[in-house]
Amino acid sequence: MSPSLSMYQASVPVFVRALRNLKHVLEKGQAHAQERGFDAGVLLQTRLYPDMLPLLRQVQNATDTAKFGAARLAGVESPKFDDDETSFAELYARLDRVIDYLGRFDEAAFAGSETRAITLPTRSRGELKFDGRGYLLGFATPNLYFHVSTAYAILRHSGVPVGKRDFLGDH
Amino acid sequence: MSPSLSMYQASVPVFVRALRNLKHVLEKGQAHAQERGFDAGVLLQTRLYPDMLPLLRQVQNATDTAKFGAARLAGVESPKFDDDETSFAELYARLDRVIDYLGRFDEAAFAGSETRAITLPTRSRGELKFDGRGYLLGFATPNLYFHVSTAYAILRHSGVPVGKRDFLGDH
Repeated sequence: MSPSLSMYQASVPVFVRALRNLKHVLEKGQAHAQERGFDAGVLLQTRLYPDMLPLLRQVQNATDTAKFGAARLAGVESPKFDDDETSFAELYARLDRVIDYLGRFDEAAFAGSETRAITLPTRSRGELKFDGRGYLLGFATPNLYFHVSTAYAILRHSGVPVGKRDFLGDH
Repeated sequence: MSPSLSMYQASVPVFVRALRNLKHVLEKGQAHAQERGFDAGVLLQTRLYPDMLPLLRQVQNATDTAKFGAARLAGVESPKFDDDETSFAELYARLDRVIDYLGRFDEAAFAGSETRAITLPTRSRGELKFDGRGYLLGFATPNLYFHVSTAYAILRHSGVPVGKRDFLGDH
């Protein structure tokens, strides 16, 4: 192979950007509720289907995916959160906390992470085993984009005027 | 930096897997329509909001993002499609065609792609300029996941019994 990317480049800045863009679309959602005069909290409980997670949980899961992703690749313990957010302001604080946490990693922390053995306990499928590269490319990254895209879709479905540039941008 | 990934590893197999999983969730959508006795074509025209693209266009855009992504990184012309699909069968053929196209690239085709200058013409923002690394991590990959997640969200919202394992799996 011709090595041309680092595990760090393909994770930390990517995760930070996805979370910043998520915060940006959430801010548009909150502003839309204020303009239209409805309780923004309604958006946090909106889902695309009755047995799907609502917006609030999509944001919690996106942040968890990012912080666990970086921690597992670096081989350190991830901070535990209480998952007790109930408002946009609290979700922004959670996003800021994870963006700050990600910013404390540097390239050196990810040295050798491509071959690090990573084991994920799951409720329904026992333990999933990866090397770091497979974990980053086949689990952490798609999972993070799944949750940020779903959060965007819930807001879009709710009439919030967001476009793909809000999702892809560098906010 | 500690180079530990190749541009090829972070693109071609990732794109192929995302498109295979997309085909898998589409198959579940078609099967659901057959079981419930409604025209599966209805799903292809379903959208999450009136001015958002329907499922059919999400699949076309996902495949375009993947084939343009690989072609631009390798510095070759991407095949042009007529965008005339109207059925699940035709979308499967399009997905297969792009998966086959991606499979023809090898590591060597991506040598030096991390610094390749890539220019995208856009309708509303003039030309976007990237190096290959920024294009892959900041445009092609999030854009692909945006469209496959949105396709999944449209099916999920329509009552198709898919779960995150269908999205993340290796189908």
